[in-house]
Amino acid sequence: MIVVMNYQADKNDIQSVVNRLEGLGFKIHLSEGVERTIIGAVGDKTQINDVALEAMPGVEKVVPIMHQYKLASKVFKKESTIVKVKGLEIGGGKLQVMAGPCAVESREQLLEAAKQVKEAGGTILRGGAFKPRTSPYSFQGLEEEGLKLLAEASEATGMPIVTEVMDASALPLIREYADILQIGARNMQNFFLLRKVAKENKPVLLKRSPSATIEEWLMAAEYILAEGNFDVILCERGIKSFETYTRNTLDLTAVPVVKYLSHLPVIVDPSHAIGDWRFVGDMSKAAVVSGADGLMIEVHPNPPEALCDGKQSLTPENFKKLMKELNIIANTLGKSLNDS
Amino acid sequence: MIVVMNYQADKNDIQSVVNRLEGLGFKIHLSEGVERTIIGAVGDKTQINDVALEAMPGVEKVVPIMHQYKLASKVFKKESTIVKVKGLEIGGGKLQVMAGPCAVESREQLLEAAKQVKEAGGTILRGGAFKPRTSPYSFQGLEEEGLKLLAEASEATGMPIVTEVMDASALPLIREYADILQIGARNMQNFFLLRKVAKENKPVLLKRSPSATIEEWLMAAEYILAEGNFDVILCERGIKSFETYTRNTLDLTAVPVVKYLSHLPVIVDPSHAIGDWRFVGDMSKAAVVSGADGLMIEVHPNPPEALCDGKQSLTPENFKKLMKELNIIANTLGKSLNDS
Amino acid sequence: MIVVMNYQADKNDIQSVVNRLEGLGFKIHLSEGVERTIIGAVGDKTQINDVALEAMPGVEKVVPIMHQYKLASKVFKKESTIVKVKGLEIGGGKLQVMAGPCAVESREQLLEAAKQVKEAGGTILRGGAFKPRTSPYSFQGLEEEGLKLLAEASEATGMPIVTEVMDASALPLIREYADILQIGARNMQNFFLLRKVAKENKPVLLKRSPSATIEEWLMAAEYILAEGNFDVILCERGIKSFETYTRNTLDLTAVPVVKYLSHLPVIVDPSHAIGDWRFVGDMSKAAVVSGADGLMIEVHPNPPEALCDGKQSLTPENFKKLMKELNIIANTLGKSLNDS
Amino acid sequence: MIVVMNYQADKNDIQSVVNRLEGLGFKIHLSEGVERTIIGAVGDKTQINDVALEAMPGVEKVVPIMHQYKLASKVFKKESTIVKVKGLEIGGGKLQVMAGPCAVESREQLLEAAKQVKEAGGTILRGGAFKPRTSPYSFQGLEEEGLKLLAEASEATGMPIVTEVMDASALPLIREYADILQIGARNMQNFFLLRKVAKENKPVLLKRSPSATIEEWLMAAEYILAEGNFDVILCERGIKSFETYTRNTLDLTAVPVVKYLSHLPVIVDPSHAIGDWRFVGDMSKAAVVSGADGLMIEVHPNPPEALCDGKQSLTPENFKKLMKELNIIANTLGKSLNDS
Repeated sequence: MIVVMNYQADKNDIQSVVNRLEGLGFKIHLSEGVERTIIGAVGDKTQINDVALEAMPGVEKVVPIMHQYKLASKVFKKESTIVKVKGLEIGGGKLQVMAGPCAVESREQLLEAAKQVKEAGGTILRGGAFKPRTSPYSFQGLEEEGLKLLAEASEATGMPIVTEVMDASALPLIREYADILQIGARNMQNFFLLRKVAKENKPVLLKRSPSATIEEWLMAAEYILAEGNFDVILCERGIKSFETYTRNTLDLTAVPVVKYLSHLPVIVDPSHAIGDWRFVGDMSKAAVVSGADGLMIEVHPNPPEALCDGKQSLTPENFKKLMKELNIIANTLGKSLNDS
Repeated sequence: MIVVMNYQADKNDIQSVVNRLEGLGFKIHLSEGVERTIIGAVGDKTQINDVALEAMPGVEKVVPIMHQYKLASKVFKKESTIVKVKGLEIGGGKLQVMAGPCAVESREQLLEAAKQVKEAGGTILRGGAFKPRTSPYSFQGLEEEGLKLLAEASEATGMPIVTEVMDASALPLIREYADILQIGARNMQNFFLLRKVAKENKPVLLKRSPSATIEEWLMAAEYILAEGNFDVILCERGIKSFETYTRNTLDLTAVPVVKYLSHLPVIVDPSHAIGDWRFVGDMSKAAVVSGADGLMIEVHPNPPEALCDGKQSLTPENFKKLMKELNIIANTLGKSLNDS
Repeated sequence: MIVVMNYQADKNDIQSVVNRLEGLGFKIHLSEGVERTIIGAVGDKTQINDVALEAMPGVEKVVPIMHQYKLASKVFKKESTIVKVKGLEIGGGKLQVMAGPCAVESREQLLEAAKQVKEAGGTILRGGAFKPRTSPYSFQGLEEEGLKLLAEASEATGMPIVTEVMDASALPLIREYADILQIGARNMQNFFLLRKVAKENKPVLLKRSPSATIEEWLMAAEYILAEGNFDVILCERGIKSFETYTRNTLDLTAVPVVKYLSHLPVIVDPSHAIGDWRFVGDMSKAAVVSGADGLMIEVHPNPPEALCDGKQSLTPENFKKLMKELNIIANTLGKSLNDS
Repeated sequence: MIVVMNYQADKNDIQSVVNRLEGLGFKIHLSEGVERTIIGAVGDKTQINDVALEAMPGVEKVVPIMHQYKLASKVFKKESTIVKVKGLEIGGGKLQVMAGPCAVESREQLLEAAKQVKEAGGTILRGGAFKPRTSPYSFQGLEEEGLKLLAEASEATGMPIVTEVMDASALPLIREYADILQIGARNMQNFFLLRKVAKENKPVLLKRSPSATIEEWLMAAEYILAEGNFDVILCERGIKSFETYTRNTLDLTAVPVVKYLSHLPVIVDPSHAIGDWRFVGDMSKAAVVSGADGLMIEVHPNPPEALCDGKQSLTPENFKKLMKELNIIANTLGKSLNDS
C-alpha cells in the first residue's frame, strides 16, 4: 500500500501516518520527493481495509497495490478449480451447457424444454422457481410447485438442476431440489445470502452484478470461499453501460481476465446480457472461444408465450442448431461439449 | 405500446401480432407505412410485461410508451407524500438531516457522534449495526449490540433511528429498534426483502442502486407501495460511471426528475456517492438547492479511527460548520432545517 | 414518431401539436386514452430532427420509432458492402488482419514489424504517423517522415496502408500515402473531418468512439455515406464503462448487431479496447467468431521499447501463433484468412 | 511510480526492470515481499509515459502515483486563475452567465435572444455558427453569416461572444468575431485543434468530453497550457452513464474536485448535460452552490421553433426568473452575478 502525502503535508503529518502504520505492524519505506512524500507500507493488508488514512491530515490518497481477495486468487491456488456436480465437471476440459426456460411456468412447458435441451446436448437444466422481476406486476415464479417440476424434469432427463436462491429463508426448501445454487446478479453483493448459501455444501453459481467490477465480483466469491466452500462457478451476464441497443453489455474480456486472476471456473450467460435471441448464438460461440467453461442459455418451447424473458429465449430448433455449431468450435479448440 | 414490424414482415406476421394483442384486450391502431408497419396498442399495460412480442416473427421491436410504475407516479397521486416519523416530517417544508457514523463501533463512539449530530441540528440518527462490506475481512457490524446502542443514543438525544436491514431474517430484531428501515443500495432490487420490509408498517428509506436507472428505482419503490406502505423515502447515493476520482457519480439531477415523476420524498447521501469528505460539504449544499427533502451524512468523532468509511466521514466540527451553511441556504430557498 | 402528451395537457395543447405536425406534412393518428393522449405521426422523419416538440406546452416526451440513419441501414441496401483496397476485399468471405505498430517510430522498427506481419499472414499494414496522445508530453508521431516509412514498408511487403487522419489539414499529405484513411475513436463525431475525408474517394475506417452508442456510430458513418462514399469499414475498439481492469470494455456484441442493422463491414481492434497484450489473443479469436470481417492488431518488434502502447502490443512470435489459431477458427466457420 | 512484479517473476525479471528504470534516471526503492516484489521509482514521470514496463517479463502492473498534468495542477500554481475577457472576469468573485441560443438561426432570433439575455443579467453571449450535429440531415449552422450576426448582437448589447471552433481551418474566420473560443465536448481530445486554438492568444472554453475522466479533461487543458495559453475555462456538460432519462449525467461533483486539483476556473452547462429545460433551473442553482464560476445556458426566444436543441432551451421568461433566483443564491454565498 502506498500513501501519497499532499504537497502541503508537513513533518508532523508524515510522522503521524508512519506511526499509525507502524502501530499496525507495517514495515515502512519513506520516499521524500521534491514535491511530496510517498510512504510505502508492507504488511498484512487485510487490516488496512478498516483504516481510513485519507482522513488523516496531509494525506492526498492511498493507492492499494495488492488485490483484496486471497482465496479466489491464482496466487493462493495455482491449479484450476473443477466443480463437480452429479458426475459432471465444470472447469475441466469439457464445456457444460446449462439451458432451460427463464421461469418454470407449467409442467408441460418445463418437461418439453428439458427434453429438448437434453436431446440437443445440454447437460444441466436451468429454470427459475423464484423470479426477481423489475415490476411487482410481473409473474414472480411458481415457487415450491416450480421446484417440484424441476425435480421431475431432472428425473426424466438425468440433468442436474441449477436454480436461483433469492432469499435465505427459501434455502431449506431449495436445497432439497437444487444441485447448484444460483446467486442472481442483483444479489451478488447480498453478503448475508452469500454466507448462508456457502454453508450448504453445494456448488454455487455466482452471477456478476451488472454494476460490479471484476475485482468486486471476485470479492463476492471470496465470501463464499471464506466459508470453506470452494465450489464456486462464476457467471458473466452483462454489465451496465450507456449502450441501449442491448439489455446490458456482455463483457466477454472478463472471461480471460478472470482465468488470469483466479482459479475458479467461469461461464457466460449471453441471454440475459444481450436480451435479444437474435444475437445469443453468435455470442455463445464467441464466449466459448474466449475461454469460458460453459454457457447458460435460455430455451423456451414457445418464446412468444413465455411469461418471462421470451425476447431473449431460443426456440428448441435454434438451440439445437447452436449446439451443433458449438460442438464444432469446441472441437477446434481441443475441447468438447460434455455429451459428445 | 408501439410494435414496430421489420421491413420484411408480411401480412401474416402483422395479423398474428394484432390477434395476439386483441386477445389480450388491447385496442389496436394500425399504421402501414411504405417501409414498415407500426402497430399501436392501447390498454392495460401491466399485462404486457409478460408478453414477448419481440419473439414473434416479423417484430423488430416493442417501444413502451408509458412508465411501468403506477402507485409511485404523480399521475396516480398528485400531492407530495409526507412521511412522518416521531413527529418529524420528511417531504414537507423542513429539511431533515440524517447523520451519524457509517457503523456503530462502540458505545462511546456512537453516543459522542449522536450528541454532536444533535447539537449541530441533525434530526435523525443513522448508524449501521449490520454492515454490507465488499471484503469478508472487513468489520461487519456489532449486530444486536449495535442496535441496543442505537436505542440508547436515540433515548439520550431524542432522535429517531434509521438503520439498514440487510436480510429479512433480521427484521424481527431490527423492528424493535429502528424508526426507519433502510434498504441499502445493493439490496434495491432484492424484491423479497422489499416486500417483507414493506409489511412492517414503518417508513422505508430506499437507496438507489448504483446501477439502477431512475425508472428501475421507482419500480423498486412500487414493490413497497404495492404492499400498501406509502411511507417510502427515496435516497440518491451515486451511480456507477467511468469516472474513478470519486467513488460513484452523484446524480443530483435525479432529485428534480424524481420530484417531477413521483410524489415520493427524496433525500441525498453525498457521503457514499463521493467517498471523500472533502467534497461532501459542497455537494450537500448543492443537493438542498436541487430540491432534496433532506440529507444523509456520515459523521464520526474521529474519522481516521473509523472501522468503516472513515475517508468519507465528516468530523463533528466540519458537520457543525456545514449545518450552519445549510441553514442559510435553506432559508434563502424559503425552507428551513427542521430544528431551526 | 410518437408524441406522448402529459396528463395535464388540454385540448388546445393537443391541437397545437397536431397543427404543428400537419404543417410539416405528417399524417396524424390520435389516440385519446383515459390518462393521456398519444399522437402518432407518420411522414419524413428527417424533418423532425429539427423540431423541438418537447418544448411545446403539454408535451411529455417524443418517442422516435425509426432509426435516424438511412444510407447505412440494411433497409436501404440489403446486400453486404464489400470494400476493396488494392485487390483485397473487406466484408467478403475472407478475413483481413490489419497489423503493425501503434506508431511509426523508426525505419528499422517499421520495416521489421511489416515483414513479420506479412510473414504471419497479415494483409494490411497499420501504423500511426500522427498520434493523438492523452498527454502533450508523450511522443506525437513522426508525421511526414512516418508516412514515407509506411510507403517504403508497403512497397517492401505489398501490403496496403491504413493510417489515421487526425485533422483535415493533413489530408493533402496523407492521401499520397494511405490506402485506407482511418478516423480515430476520438474523432468519430468530428463531423467536419468526416465530410472532408469522405470526399477523398478512398476507403474510410471509422473507429467507434468510446462513448458512442451503436446508433451514434452508424450516424457518423451516415455522414460519410451522405457524401457519396460507401467504402466505410466500421471498427469496434471498446467503450467506456465502470470496469477499470481493462482500458475499455470491448463490446463484441456490437459486431452481430451492426451486421443486423447495417450492410457495412465491421472489424474489431482488441488491442486498444483491452489495453493489455495478455488478452488480445483470446479476444481476437472471439471477435472472428462473433462475425467480424477482420481485425486490427498492434504488433511491435520489441514492445517494452515501444514509444506508444507497448503494453497492448503483441510480439511477432505471439502474433504468428495467434494467426495460426485464427486460421483454424476461420476455417471452422467456413471462412479463411485472406492469405490462406 | 510503482511496478508490481507478478508472483512468478524471478531475479532476472526484477533486475531487468530495475536496470531499465535506472537507465531512464529513476531512483529505485526495492521492496521484496513474501509473495511478490514491488519496485518504487522516483524521478521525472514525463519520461515514463512512453515506457511500456508492462510488456517486460514478470511485470504484473504499473501503478502511477502522480497526476500526469503539471501546468494545470494546483501544485504548479496555487492561486486561482482568473480569465479576463473584455473587462469581465471568469474565476473571480463574480459569476458569469453565458447564455443564448444553441445555434444562430436568423438575425431576428439572435438579436432578440441577445437582448433578453442581456436584460436578464447575462454577461456573455453564446451561439453556434458551426454546429456539430449527430445527424447529417440536421441544420448545420449559418457559418460566416452566423458569425456576422453574433458580432452585430455583441455590438448591440455589449456582451462578448463565445462560439465553437469545430475545425482549425475555420480559425482565421472565427478569430475575427469570437472573444472566447469554445472547444466542443466532441473535440476535447482533438489534440491538433487544441494546439491550434491555444496559439490564438484568446481565452479558450474547454468542454469536458462525455467520456472523459476528470484527469483526461485536465490533460486536455494541459495541451493548451503547454502552448503558453493559461486562459482556459473548463466547462462541465454531462458525462455518459446508463441513465437514459436525462441526455447525459451532470457530474456536479466534478466542480469542487476540479477546484481542488487545479487553479483553472470551471463553469457548468446544465442545458446540454440534461437535455430538458424542465430541470435546467434547479441544476443551474445547484451548480452555483457546488462552486462553479459561472454557467452556460441555452435561451431561445421560441424554443419549439428552434432548429437545434429546443427541448433544452429556456424561454426568455424562464431565464429571467432563473437569473433572479441565481442572484439571491449567489448573494447568500457571498458572491454575486456580474451585473448586480
